[in-house]
Amino acid sequence: MAADEGVRALRETLGAQVVMLPGEFGDRRVEDWSGLPSAVPLALVRPRDTAEVAAALALCTRHALPVVTQGGLTGLVGGANLRGDEVALSLDRMNRIVEIDAVSGTMTVEAGTPLQVVQEAASAAGFYFPLDLGARGSCSIGGNLATNAGGNRVIKYGMMRDQVLGLEAVLASGAVVGGLNKMIKNNSGYDLRHLLTGSEGTLAVITRAVLRLRPKPTATATAWCGLPDFAAVTTLLTRAQAGLAPGVSAFEVMWAGYHDTVLANLDTLRAPLASPHPFYVLLESVGTDPVRHGEAFEEFLGTMLEEGIVSDAALASSEAHAQAFWAIRDAPGEYQRFIPDHAAYDVSFSIAQVGEAAALCEARLRERWPGATILVYGHLGDGNIHIVVDVPGMPKHDHDDIDRIVYDVTREFHGSISAEHGIGVKKKHFLRQSRTEADVESMRAIKQALDPHGILNPGKIF
Amino acid sequence: MAADEGVRALRETLGAQVVMLPGEFGDRRVEDWSGLPSAVPLALVRPRDTAEVAAALALCTRHALPVVTQGGLTGLVGGANLRGDEVALSLDRMNRIVEIDAVSGTMTVEAGTPLQVVQEAASAAGFYFPLDLGARGSCSIGGNLATNAGGNRVIKYGMMRDQVLGLEAVLASGAVVGGLNKMIKNNSGYDLRHLLTGSEGTLAVITRAVLRLRPKPTATATAWCGLPDFAAVTTLLTRAQAGLAPGVSAFEVMWAGYHDTVLANLDTLRAPLASPHPFYVLLESVGTDPVRHGEAFEEFLGTMLEEGIVSDAALASSEAHAQAFWAIRDAPGEYQRFIPDHAAYDVSFSIAQVGEAAALCEARLRERWPGATILVYGHLGDGNIHIVVDVPGMPKHDHDDIDRIVYDVTREFHGSISAEHGIGVKKKHFLRQSRTEADVESMRAIKQALDPHGILNPGKIF
Repeated sequence: MAADEGVRALRETLGAQVVMLPGEFGDRRVEDWSGLPSAVPLALVRPRDTAEVAAALALCTRHALPVVTQGGLTGLVGGANLRGDEVALSLDRMNRIVEIDAVSGTMTVEAGTPLQVVQEAASAAGFYFPLDLGARGSCSIGGNLATNAGGNRVIKYGMMRDQVLGLEAVLASGAVVGGLNKMIKNNSGYDLRHLLTGSEGTLAVITRAVLRLRPKPTATATAWCGLPDFAAVTTLLTRAQAGLAPGVSAFEVMWAGYHDTVLANLDTLRAPLASPHPFYVLLESVGTDPVRHGEAFEEFLGTMLEEGIVSDAALASSEAHAQAFWAIRDAPGEYQRFIPDHAAYDVSFSIAQVGEAAALCEARLRERWPGATILVYGHLGDGNIHIVVDVPGMPKHDHDDIDRIVYDVTREFHGSISAEHGIGVKKKHFLRQSRTEADVESMRAIKQALDPHGILNPGKIF
Repeated sequence: MAADEGVRALRETLGAQVVMLPGEFGDRRVEDWSGLPSAVPLALVRPRDTAEVAAALALCTRHALPVVTQGGLTGLVGGANLRGDEVALSLDRMNRIVEIDAVSGTMTVEAGTPLQVVQEAASAAGFYFPLDLGARGSCSIGGNLATNAGGNRVIKYGMMRDQVLGLEAVLASGAVVGGLNKMIKNNSGYDLRHLLTGSEGTLAVITRAVLRLRPKPTATATAWCGLPDFAAVTTLLTRAQAGLAPGVSAFEVMWAGYHDTVLANLDTLRAPLASPHPFYVLLESVGTDPVRHGEAFEEFLGTMLEEGIVSDAALASSEAHAQAFWAIRDAPGEYQRFIPDHAAYDVSFSIAQVGEAAALCEARLRERWPGATILVYGHLGDGNIHIVVDVPGMPKHDHDDIDRIVYDVTREFHGSISAEHGIGVKKKHFLRQSRTEADVESMRAIKQALDPHGILNPGKIF
């Protein structure tokens, strides 16, 4: 068999330390967090440097052997899962911080470096690496790049593509493209960095990157706000962005249904406000001047209360107090305890249409399943909401009908079926709800141009 | 001739109002600001909407007729110039603002809309469109996108690619890709928007875009600083980014040679400081709270003076005073008056290496031409400097020897030969000083995938 020959060639060339066969890697996890099915790879390849990645890919292309690149395996759409006819290429050994350049404000890392390691190294060097998500301890920078990860601080700092200056990657042929550039401006031909970011391992294997570091914020102001309607929520966003000089670092909106449900189900949470409101916003601003920053934030909040844009608000008086607000927003980490079979969606719209789109979704879902639990919340500053649906008695992996309702609304509002999680296998049948046929054909043409034998992460995205 | 047939087919399909033949468009300018040679097009095509662009490109592909897309024709690298065997496709009639969405903070425009029109419309709607460059009155949004334009405010707001949410474009085949999305987060497949941005008209014709608007700054603080050495300049940058909460909106560094030369040659300029310094920095920060912002800026500047990072400084006391500082930085607009035959370079490096790279450049140029005028200045926060060289007696268009010296240093420091101007025809022979052969091959493969007959802006970039 061609695949056997390919695996044999990999093992001979790279050695048994790098190329492990089934039975040799024990019960090591090889599937992501999506809960979707995954198979055992024909071999697990664990290169130690870019040259070994290049050698492996050149051999895989020669033997038409499919390759699934794996980072921290924390993805939610099955993008790193296996069909069974591929080798898994793990970047876990390439986990070194190569350099921190404090003058240029950059950190050069290998792709397998966990996000949290990068965050901590940046902090130790007096800087801030703003990308942050729940999986920080496990997810890797390479995976963050391959999926263009988002998270809570996008409103101020952008997504993963905005955190990278230079990117080195290996094409299916084994050719190494890009490089460890530290330039912020670079208009010398097509920007491969931006094409590869978010391509979910289908165009190249990202091996190293130069990350951009930011000044460390030294002042944080946080408030929990209750608002009368969605128009007030978008007004608060616009006013906060215009009125808080250092900008808004988080603007997390929660519909009342979310707030009430998580508070009813999780004993550790306390409602920050005495009375109920239709919408809640966790507003945060970071700056560098604690006194002026705190004063300006409090003044701004006072104005919003006076004008009735915010009905009631609690200002965090300490870091612990702010953390208690964040605990309500972070409750999705506890869904397994009370809605283990829920369906979860990560969609985005124009900011102006988020309210209407969410309402339509909820109405259609409610019409079909009157007893459903429907939770809506998200990063409004990015137009990104998460919709969680739990229909009593409906098992996990049988969510097709819910999928259709949510993604139809997404298409009707010209939204995105994937704001930050990617397409993987989970959403590929819905890709055309967000992309035209001409778009998909262009994507296929680009894929064919860079990976003519289709060995990189086949069956993902399209 | 095939070309004649193609032009005839264009004229028949789109009409004489859209497709004009030589002689019918008078002495209308068809070359850019590079000063490089350009020819008369076989026809000038001026579509009124995306459908006409699509019809024109489909016909050009069928007849293998090359197309050069033209916007405001303000480019500096010959990217929109003609060889003589192409039709020129001007977007000048597609110059409408389609919509301003004040809640989402977006403006949807046709690609031919001049930058200044966008800036003014944003301002009238209570917003700010941050991209700004000298050619603002003539350059178009489509050209800004095709070249990923930069300018003075990149340090705070990013380049043109950071100002666009949705992008509609027409491929060579006539297929329309992308769309007028307003989402900030959108991870549904490859990001064609970022691939097309900066591709200089070689992959598609950009027809419409959704631009991201920002809150309007209402407080500006500006200072002119004299510094003892380059280490102090990078320290000031790091400290300003960390210490000024709303961030730095401009950090323009000028080497003494630049300062002294422009002041000696332009009567209208006045030196802001009494004594000479090796380096000058124009530091600007914008915010929203005039009182707190001004106080914090002045305190920061005081600390920098106390610590000796800044040797002397002048704080702008009025807008006119700030404009007098900017006039020194904007002196390149007057080069024609005293160094009309100069060679100009737009290069970038890591911030840490800008000083060393500039010094090496200057030393090598000085060794070869001891009497040369060498001016160095630029956007240090982006690692981007401009180097201007005037060798007495050396005519314009005979700068090959200077090119080689500057671009060799660029390669040695892993810098970019084009920070913000693009490659066009002017820099294409130097592309490999900044990109590897594998990079160029990938670019060719992508070009071949999206424009298989090579009709879009042939001969540009590579």
